Amino acid sequence: MKSLHALKALGVAQIQQANSGHPGIVLGAAPMVHTLYSKHLRVYPNEPTWTNRDRFVLSAGHGSALLYAMLHLAGFQVSIDDLKQFRQWGSKTPGHPEYGHTPGVEATTGPLGQGISMAVGMEIARVSMAARYNKPQFPLFDYYTYALCGDGDLQEGVTQEAMSLAGHLQLDHLIVMFDSNDIQLDGPVLAANSENIKAKVEAMNWAYLYVADGQDASAVDAALVKAKTFDQPVFIEIKTVIGEGTSGAGDAEVHGAPLSTDDYQSLLVSFDISDPFDVSSDVYKELGSIMTRGKKAYEDYVSLFVSYKDNYPELYKELTSQLTTPMVSFEALTHEATRISSGKVIADISSKIPYFMGGSADLTKSTKAKGADGDFHRTNPTGRNINFGVREHAMAAIVNGITLSGMKAFGSGFLIFSDYCKPSMRLAALMRIGSIFVFTHDSIAVGEDGPTHQPVEQLSGLRAIPNMNVIRPANATETAAAWKLALDSDTNPTTIVLTRQNLMNHSASNYHQVKKGAYIISPEKDQVDVVLLASGSEVNACIEAQQLLFEQGVDARVVSMPSMFYFDSQSTDYKTSVLPVDTPVVAVEMASAGEYYKYTNHVIGINTFGASAPGNTNIKNYGFDGAGLASTIQENLKKQ
Amino acid sequence: MKSLHALKALGVAQIQQANSGHPGIVLGAAPMVHTLYSKHLRVYPNEPTWTNRDRFVLSAGHGSALLYAMLHLAGFQVSIDDLKQFRQWGSKTPGHPEYGHTPGVEATTGPLGQGISMAVGMEIARVSMAARYNKPQFPLFDYYTYALCGDGDLQEGVTQEAMSLAGHLQLDHLIVMFDSNDIQLDGPVLAANSENIKAKVEAMNWAYLYVADGQDASAVDAALVKAKTFDQPVFIEIKTVIGEGTSGAGDAEVHGAPLSTDDYQSLLVSFDISDPFDVSSDVYKELGSIMTRGKKAYEDYVSLFVSYKDNYPELYKELTSQLTTPMVSFEALTHEATRISSGKVIADISSKIPYFMGGSADLTKSTKAKGADGDFHRTNPTGRNINFGVREHAMAAIVNGITLSGMKAFGSGFLIFSDYCKPSMRLAALMRIGSIFVFTHDSIAVGEDGPTHQPVEQLSGLRAIPNMNVIRPANATETAAAWKLALDSDTNPTTIVLTRQNLMNHSASNYHQVKKGAYIISPEKDQVDVVLLASGSEVNACIEAQQLLFEQGVDARVVSMPSMFYFDSQSTDYKTSVLPVDTPVVAVEMASAGEYYKYTNHVIGINTFGASAPGNTNIKNYGFDGAGLASTIQENLKKQ
Repeated sequence: MKSLHALKALGVAQIQQANSGHPGIVLGAAPMVHTLYSKHLRVYPNEPTWTNRDRFVLSAGHGSALLYAMLHLAGFQVSIDDLKQFRQWGSKTPGHPEYGHTPGVEATTGPLGQGISMAVGMEIARVSMAARYNKPQFPLFDYYTYALCGDGDLQEGVTQEAMSLAGHLQLDHLIVMFDSNDIQLDGPVLAANSENIKAKVEAMNWAYLYVADGQDASAVDAALVKAKTFDQPVFIEIKTVIGEGTSGAGDAEVHGAPLSTDDYQSLLVSFDISDPFDVSSDVYKELGSIMTRGKKAYEDYVSLFVSYKDNYPELYKELTSQLTTPMVSFEALTHEATRISSGKVIADISSKIPYFMGGSADLTKSTKAKGADGDFHRTNPTGRNINFGVREHAMAAIVNGITLSGMKAFGSGFLIFSDYCKPSMRLAALMRIGSIFVFTHDSIAVGEDGPTHQPVEQLSGLRAIPNMNVIRPANATETAAAWKLALDSDTNPTTIVLTRQNLMNHSASNYHQVKKGAYIISPEKDQVDVVLLASGSEVNACIEAQQLLFEQGVDARVVSMPSMFYFDSQSTDYKTSVLPVDTPVVAVEMASAGEYYKYTNHVIGINTFGASAPGNTNIKNYGFDGAGLASTIQENLKKQ
Repeated sequence: MKSLHALKALGVAQIQQANSGHPGIVLGAAPMVHTLYSKHLRVYPNEPTWTNRDRFVLSAGHGSALLYAMLHLAGFQVSIDDLKQFRQWGSKTPGHPEYGHTPGVEATTGPLGQGISMAVGMEIARVSMAARYNKPQFPLFDYYTYALCGDGDLQEGVTQEAMSLAGHLQLDHLIVMFDSNDIQLDGPVLAANSENIKAKVEAMNWAYLYVADGQDASAVDAALVKAKTFDQPVFIEIKTVIGEGTSGAGDAEVHGAPLSTDDYQSLLVSFDISDPFDVSSDVYKELGSIMTRGKKAYEDYVSLFVSYKDNYPELYKELTSQLTTPMVSFEALTHEATRISSGKVIADISSKIPYFMGGSADLTKSTKAKGADGDFHRTNPTGRNINFGVREHAMAAIVNGITLSGMKAFGSGFLIFSDYCKPSMRLAALMRIGSIFVFTHDSIAVGEDGPTHQPVEQLSGLRAIPNMNVIRPANATETAAAWKLALDSDTNPTTIVLTRQNLMNHSASNYHQVKKGAYIISPEKDQVDVVLLASGSEVNACIEAQQLLFEQGVDARVVSMPSMFYFDSQSTDYKTSVLPVDTPVVAVEMASAGEYYKYTNHVIGINTFGASAPGNTNIKNYGFDGAGLASTIQENLKKQ
């Protein structure tokens, strides 16, 4: 009990110190977090990234102070000084939990719905890895994933998508604790939401448990015990009081601002604590079982793994070695849509990398992005294709969750639907993880489906995300390279952007050129008059234009720029060898294309929406066929 | 019956002619669409935008051929020749339905989930307008909104958000027909989804009805009749067979590609139709009741409205005149966050424009974007604040639906959450409607909440959307102007981007300057050495830097650019009067800022994520305080 008070006090103290934060959830949800860590969570603070640890995702990321306090008390490398630096520049304790930044934080959360959806991905990864690597007496992957969410999380569409899929897949080591306090930022939940949550989650094939009083540790404990007995994901609604123990308890005002001095002081008095940052040794002792239990579990696992090596040497090797990502070869004369090439690459990678899985949001037949070995489900756990359904947003978040669990994962759809995925794609970039997003049907060349399905501004939006590598391959070989680069990226996510329509391969393309971000794919004949800069399908069009221009007396160079992300980090020497400073550069992209102004003042893009017509008609009418481009480029040159 | 066959044949014939489209839904859902139009829908094809018409939204927009065929047969201005041009360049019958393009199309649909969510907005608008303008014996607004959706729609998170809100609000003239055919693109629905849909929608406070055989017109009719008896939204699950009557019936393959010639021919034979485009007069006669019923309803409404004028002259005037949007004045010395100014403007507009409503996604206390007269609910229908809950995506779609219904509407949240809204914001731009999106907390100056809550790339992404006017005001007066411009925009949506932190007002700012997109807010003292180009809070910082630079011997001009959308359409003369061609321009934005390269090669932006620290610390550490800027600008000038 002492340690629960210490946890609450330490949580709130950070907020008072920073004069910023969310005390409401700290006070309301402290008991469930305390019970989870002290009685259930299998973590070893000295080895915070140990493979078979239980995961805890604080989906309600604004409760960061509670998490940091708990991590400190449990023995993670989060010191009292760190807690005192809550929300300060350069601290280990930022406003919302950040993965890779604070030991014990499993995912970056705060944008609502993301945490719970990533938790679904973590459990998918576990089931998948368990199916391949668990053996009788060797439960290498049997961890539980817990998430704590609030009303806000549950109102988000991404959560509904993820929960629906989790129920469908019958994920059985996934336990969500719902901090049900009847309050959200704008007031009572009932003013915005009147669902029957029990009926709703049961309709989505989750088990539902109810804890009437979230302060009742034994009831929370009993629910967690019971939750482990189901063959499906479990949702525990735990009634709490936001800001419990303060004058604002139960009111939205206590959600997002520090407590009044009076409230804070009387809270401390009620806890019999004078300085929350001066934690008594009794408290550490009370919670010492977390470390003890974790240490034993970790050591047991280490022994088990040694024995696993003897019994299953091949699997052991697979698990412990870095497998080489293949670079798939394509014939020089390959003439196919890059989505088709991508499908072949995915098949090849799948055959060589067992911990590679993914799928599409109900567009597999079009994207060709399909994992191997059938549809994943708890009853078919070796399936590495995830039939995400029409749930793009959850797909992207789940890919993040799988990636956070040590697997390689991809999600796919039409480029236009990257808009639906964006919040999770951003989070991948922020977490610096290697999630892979594959989008096809990447321009107005989509054709008949019309402007609702033709991306125009999506490339600009995605390229603007810090640490997101957008690769738009110009042909089959560049596509193969894009995939290898994506799989070998551990500190940034990759978005691979592919065509619906056929493209001709090119002998100048190879892995090393793609890795430079841009390269001369078709050089000038003699003296370069103009450089044509493009990506994807427009590279082929530029090569056509190059020929026409040459006949008109203009000697053009064509540069393929699959990745601005890579190119921008090249040396100035390399950059100017590709794009000479004294030669006009004309950038060509069937999209908003504003980001090309960084390289040139001459940008041929599209500043309207697309149109419903056959793809080639669109290409021609928007001026992106070889002849149209040659003519516009000539005009641009005259304006010089 | 003849007309049902004609409808199916005409639907499929378009697809065969175009060699592109989705025959599955045409054949499966034709009976319900036929029943809806022939028995229920109150539309007058000769007055397709009459105020009190029933709305039908084809949320499953890939069924466009079915809708176009129905519109033709009902008498809308969609000719046989138009149908023959299905999915062709410049035709009236694009791949997915487009609002403003085809008479009888109420909303642009195709990206799944958007249509059903806009339908929720349409019904909110009706309830709101009815509350103000309906009087005993004068039911000016009593239309029904019908939506047709498929499994894909229902799996989308945005749909779940919108349905949850619709159930909460007890919208009672909203009827969704679910074309339940057990098939989606990647195969059986059961491979991706195993929800109990009845239990789920009932848990969200919808009434659920079931039609076991979607070919049974009388059962569909009975369900529609019954649907109008509930005091809540109604969801009718109608079992159908995708591609009914073809060899591929019930299979995913029939979803998205033309029928085989054999299938097509035998279908026509079974319908006893030789040329679907040669519609027999019997068919038109069978469906003539749509026009007759619509004509009478329309004429009754016109008479009613004449009488309304006599009985309620003030309300009549309000409904029929264009009310002038106020331009709110702020004192020159106003020093407040633009979100605060915006809140005041919203209050003022609300008092003057009765058909103006909106709200925030559970962030009202922070965004200050709150509609007037209390929370909207069917039991409090005059409330013009919509408590959207944490449902950003549905919020944006609902704002579109309300706007499509003739009201002015806004939705608000933090700028970082524009990512959650993006698909619907794009649709507003594509539909060319005046939806208003208001985002606050617009930069790393958000501070302690950290990088998960600090937008960096969002401005770039939004500005890249064709036909989206992004206005980022630099002070209170620019904020007032932004609002007036947004309300007066009928052919483009507006995104207003606001600060969390205080900004100083400026006497040079006024409505006309903002409307130009960019203007000199603080001129050089004598001979301009450098132009500082910025928007929002960075304008103030540039004015500080201007002073410091002057002390260092550099005479700078500061240009505020609230809207690139407006500026890009100014004359070259005006543009060069603001940004002279022979003077270096340094653009400053605490964001990705890549789009500024269009105006200059000197861009001071941010290419990483933000950080958790007090806002002013962030501003300083990222170099965006006056002193930091002055120093970076000096470096830039040296590089010239």
